[in-house]
Amino acid sequence: MKLGMVGLGRMGANMTERLLTGGHEIVGFDFNADSRKRVVDKGAEEADKGAEEAGSLEDIVEKLVMPRVIWLMIPAGEPVDQTIRSLIPLLDSGDVIIDGGNSWYKDTLRRSEELRETGIYFVDVGTSGGIWGLTEGYSLMVGGPDKVIEHLGPIFSTLAPVPDRGWGHVGPTGSGHFVKMIHNGIEYGMMQSLAEGFTLLANKDDFGLDIHQIAEIWQHGSVVRSWLLDLTEKALSDNPTLEGIAPHVADSGEGRWTVFEAIDQNIAAPVLTHSLLQRLQSRDEEGMAYKLLAVMRREFGGHAIRETE
Amino acid sequence: MKLGMVGLGRMGANMTERLLTGGHEIVGFDFNADSRKRVVDKGAEEADKGAEEAGSLEDIVEKLVMPRVIWLMIPAGEPVDQTIRSLIPLLDSGDVIIDGGNSWYKDTLRRSEELRETGIYFVDVGTSGGIWGLTEGYSLMVGGPDKVIEHLGPIFSTLAPVPDRGWGHVGPTGSGHFVKMIHNGIEYGMMQSLAEGFTLLANKDDFGLDIHQIAEIWQHGSVVRSWLLDLTEKALSDNPTLEGIAPHVADSGEGRWTVFEAIDQNIAAPVLTHSLLQRLQSRDEEGMAYKLLAVMRREFGGHAIRETE
Repeated sequence: MKLGMVGLGRMGANMTERLLTGGHEIVGFDFNADSRKRVVDKGAEEADKGAEEAGSLEDIVEKLVMPRVIWLMIPAGEPVDQTIRSLIPLLDSGDVIIDGGNSWYKDTLRRSEELRETGIYFVDVGTSGGIWGLTEGYSLMVGGPDKVIEHLGPIFSTLAPVPDRGWGHVGPTGSGHFVKMIHNGIEYGMMQSLAEGFTLLANKDDFGLDIHQIAEIWQHGSVVRSWLLDLTEKALSDNPTLEGIAPHVADSGEGRWTVFEAIDQNIAAPVLTHSLLQRLQSRDEEGMAYKLLAVMRREFGGHAIRETE
Repeated sequence: MKLGMVGLGRMGANMTERLLTGGHEIVGFDFNADSRKRVVDKGAEEADKGAEEAGSLEDIVEKLVMPRVIWLMIPAGEPVDQTIRSLIPLLDSGDVIIDGGNSWYKDTLRRSEELRETGIYFVDVGTSGGIWGLTEGYSLMVGGPDKVIEHLGPIFSTLAPVPDRGWGHVGPTGSGHFVKMIHNGIEYGMMQSLAEGFTLLANKDDFGLDIHQIAEIWQHGSVVRSWLLDLTEKALSDNPTLEGIAPHVADSGEGRWTVFEAIDQNIAAPVLTHSLLQRLQSRDEEGMAYKLLAVMRREFGGHAIRETE
């Protein structure tokens, strides 16, 4: 089917390519002209037919046929609100906007409410798979009205690893991003588990362990075998001592939203919470709490402090 | 090659079967006569040749040829010490005892020291794969002297998922159990991450989510795809509401040893630690700390307590 893709960054460009290869027609737009050109050229090389380039949101809408389907693959937050606001006057009742990015589900619920009176359908797709999705397919958690999701089925089937697996309609609008948020919360916990374990292996000087070898062993037959272990094995193979990597971990929101959600639900999620806290800690260059602990020990016990160099 | 297997419980019996199928000769012994018989009969059915039954440790030693190789697949702790003590007078210098169970690596180091003067080699094998190892193969983390491990290679190749993958000689005696301990620590963290995430999904009444469906979606293309997710999907498929399952989680030691190790190494492992603490919490039927918190709130703020029924 024919689809407009707004946002041709790393994720949007790869998804466009996978959709083109799957026989769909894509009109692509990005506010960055270089990203547009790259995708159109690359598509033309790899698929039978490249993506059609749109020069503006108006242009993308003109190049689609009703009911128009526009997939947003843009950064969460204000960019999504702005793009939806720009699209509303250009679209008609019955058209569909899909937000495939990592939006907070509470924003999705609000946007869905705002779009209700326009008659434009709003579908949220939690998309997992990262840069490997192009070749391996994406895991898609879809929220929205039944009949719209049914209509969009061919798109999801192409993006997923296998046509009938790795994607599913999980509930009403908002639920796709909700499930993706929790997915990422779990991801934080699994990553932190692996990171702590490998650190304990690497620090055991007595045994002189090769942590890359151990990652390789565990890939076959172990209880911890997983895609994240595979990626760890690959990273350790390329750079066994993690040379040049700063001990600084960013987050893109879903982990903290998961913690807010747990507290809202009155449910203890200590591991998902601590996985987020460790990322915050990794960015704490000031170390004020550590300084305070050190001076308190000095005050009550005369314990030595370490002075800054 | 010919090998004695002491301990024909769930793990030992399956490993015996996999070794027989792989063409090795096994003499099996278990202190429980029923377990012995089951393995010998089952082996006879499935492999070209069943396991040979030994009626005692003396018998198993007599039925092997030097250098004898005896694999212990028995519960960690005192049973391992007792069996080694019984075997010492029966074995000769150059024979090999393999501990394939979940022993604490500090016990393994002590036993290795105790065996040193006898000339009996001691090899520790951390074995992962659980009840699925029979068909899928075991992940084996092997510690011990180079020349002994080289001699035992054909056994590890048969037990592993593929002859040259899923097993490895990770270091000196003790290191196999050390690596397996950390493996299980990571396993606790990954399990807890999945458990917390699925709980937050199940408790989100607004969306009416089907957690089994979500597990299925994630199995394909998602970042959290893993063997533990596959097992969760299977368990939810069989019993979507977890009916009849008490919220009570046991542990077999490796998780707590991992936490001790982290503290000994002066390394923070908050997620591995909390994963253990959640298991301890699950067994706290008395809830004394909760009672104390409730009465403190009453004392300072007059807050209501909930009385026992």
